[in-house]
Amino acid sequence: MGFRDFTVTPWDVKGDIDYEKLTKDFGVKHLDDKTLQNVQKQTGDLHYFLKRKIFFSHMYFDEILDEAKKGNKFYLYTGRAPSGPVHLGHLIPWIFTKWLQDKFGATLLFQIPDEEKFLFKDNLTFNDTNRWAYENILDIIAVGFDQKKTKIFLDTEYAGHMYKTACMVAKKTTMSKLKSLFGLNDSNNVGEFFYTCMQSVPAFLPTIMEDKPTRCLIPCAIDQDVHFRLTRDVATQIGFPKPATILSRFLPSLTEGGKMSSSIENTAIFTTDDEKVVKNKIMKYAFSGGRESVEDHRQKGGVPEADVSYQYLTYFMEDSNKLKKIYEDYKSGKMLTGELKQITVEVINKFLSDHQEKREKAKNKIEDFMVHD
Amino acid sequence: MGFRDFTVTPWDVKGDIDYEKLTKDFGVKHLDDKTLQNVQKQTGDLHYFLKRKIFFSHMYFDEILDEAKKGNKFYLYTGRAPSGPVHLGHLIPWIFTKWLQDKFGATLLFQIPDEEKFLFKDNLTFNDTNRWAYENILDIIAVGFDQKKTKIFLDTEYAGHMYKTACMVAKKTTMSKLKSLFGLNDSNNVGEFFYTCMQSVPAFLPTIMEDKPTRCLIPCAIDQDVHFRLTRDVATQIGFPKPATILSRFLPSLTEGGKMSSSIENTAIFTTDDEKVVKNKIMKYAFSGGRESVEDHRQKGGVPEADVSYQYLTYFMEDSNKLKKIYEDYKSGKMLTGELKQITVEVINKFLSDHQEKREKAKNKIEDFMVHD
Repeated sequence: MGFRDFTVTPWDVKGDIDYEKLTKDFGVKHLDDKTLQNVQKQTGDLHYFLKRKIFFSHMYFDEILDEAKKGNKFYLYTGRAPSGPVHLGHLIPWIFTKWLQDKFGATLLFQIPDEEKFLFKDNLTFNDTNRWAYENILDIIAVGFDQKKTKIFLDTEYAGHMYKTACMVAKKTTMSKLKSLFGLNDSNNVGEFFYTCMQSVPAFLPTIMEDKPTRCLIPCAIDQDVHFRLTRDVATQIGFPKPATILSRFLPSLTEGGKMSSSIENTAIFTTDDEKVVKNKIMKYAFSGGRESVEDHRQKGGVPEADVSYQYLTYFMEDSNKLKKIYEDYKSGKMLTGELKQITVEVINKFLSDHQEKREKAKNKIEDFMVHD
Repeated sequence: MGFRDFTVTPWDVKGDIDYEKLTKDFGVKHLDDKTLQNVQKQTGDLHYFLKRKIFFSHMYFDEILDEAKKGNKFYLYTGRAPSGPVHLGHLIPWIFTKWLQDKFGATLLFQIPDEEKFLFKDNLTFNDTNRWAYENILDIIAVGFDQKKTKIFLDTEYAGHMYKTACMVAKKTTMSKLKSLFGLNDSNNVGEFFYTCMQSVPAFLPTIMEDKPTRCLIPCAIDQDVHFRLTRDVATQIGFPKPATILSRFLPSLTEGGKMSSSIENTAIFTTDDEKVVKNKIMKYAFSGGRESVEDHRQKGGVPEADVSYQYLTYFMEDSNKLKKIYEDYKSGKMLTGELKQITVEVINKFLSDHQEKREKAKNKIEDFMVHD
């Protein structure tokens, strides 16, 4: 992926991402109108992430819908590698997963691959991942999953249920294949190579748990697709149905293209940021689609497509009419960047105030969601 | 290891093995008289495997003895990959391990790495490894380990206690290193590379179980040393004491050099072979150190060092005076190959009759020895 101006791997997302090209490169399908109509028929409405193409591509989602229509249950599977605080970008697939859980009554397997970041980050210890796992699980629970239908587990604790199946994946996976899929080389440690086998496993757990072929739908950001491409390749070889995926764009970082990332300071809004911090980050750092002077802006209008605050509203403002009005006002020059930022601050702070309240309550619920062994 | 006339890897042992050269190549130490005296002081006697240099080299065994002298306990660790029936060669390290357990009162961790052979053998399934695990565990129990101080576990079942530590090993282990140690390449599957990390783990479990640095002594055949070389390299980097090893020669195959192997027909005596089968295998296939004619043999004498039956007696005839007499009589030509074979048949059939009786009784004891999760 070196010869273009963006990079999307599970460990590195940067540049101005061409989602059209990604869809082709990764061999996945656009979420087309027919599929969306199919969803709407079954769920009664469409989540605005679908209407706005925040979730924009998929594999086998049609088949999941067909199965659901026949009354055959499927599982949901998503995850979070615990190496730092949760930011708004992480929440997008989880919010959508919760919606799917509500609409389809599906059991959710929520993987915490604590070994992944441990293996990939030199200075990260299992003490660190344990601490972050605890913090991150609060955010996961705060999203509002059904505790009767959600199992959260750490790979290192749940390995007794995973390692055997991971070996089945591993047996069908040569080093050459991993090198070409993940861009790893012989100076990488062996755990970095093996890890993807563990990421495949929850896609097969539904079949193991139900003791009959049971499909799995994985909502995630598109950088994770490479893992599940491998999972799909291996699935039928080892006697499991292929997992379906439904893939999202990245919430942009405050200052630049690419995705929101915890590793670059002031480019991310964390779920624990207070109102003042959020306001300061957006006011100070959010890349603006406005013009250089007020006069210029009033005359030519802003560029909402380039404006990070506006982009955030597409993720966090549910009211599409209101959003359309903001788009038009900003584009016409009627609305200035400062006003747009102010609206974004309010929307995100309202969202976070609600999230933080649920996050606090989650502290008493952890064990209702966790499976340890 | 290609440029010499023998090969010793965990997956392949063949040729006329030069144990002196192996000791040098593997960087391990001879079991010298001083160490043996040290053993004798603590145990009251010396197992004939030690006297006869069947266990002939080691790493850090001295340190284990020093610790034991101070009253600090150590664990024993050995294993069996379940891909076929147990033959006499497999029993050698186990018999010696039992002796160590009896003498030092040490807890034994007995690993059944069911994923190892699954990963390395194309057609082997986990159903196969499960079946062989059951059969092999009967042989293990029949050796007579103390059920209060022995834990037998399958990697795929016990992974909840192993995978995290395996990842700690993996993080310190590059692909380059594994390629040079094990001779694997990019066409191998990723599980074949990762497996050795799991073989390291039981060496660290004593420290985890005791919650303080606790040494581990691994009795095994020398082909396994490469795994534990890696374990030793990694140990201090991840905060564990280095495991000690005590290494045995291979019981020769009936027909040729190298080691007894299940994969070549009629070169192995299995623990379930009946008296007639054993007699037939030894009479028909055991490579003879005798001369071409009786006259020639009477005149020049036989070559006990080359005679497989005689070699078997060094492993299975405890009475050293009797063994010495046989050696002298065979070497002088007084004893013919047929007589030597007859003695060997009797010794081995006596051993197996006893083993088979205990093996039968083991069927009711499996759960007393196993830890599943």
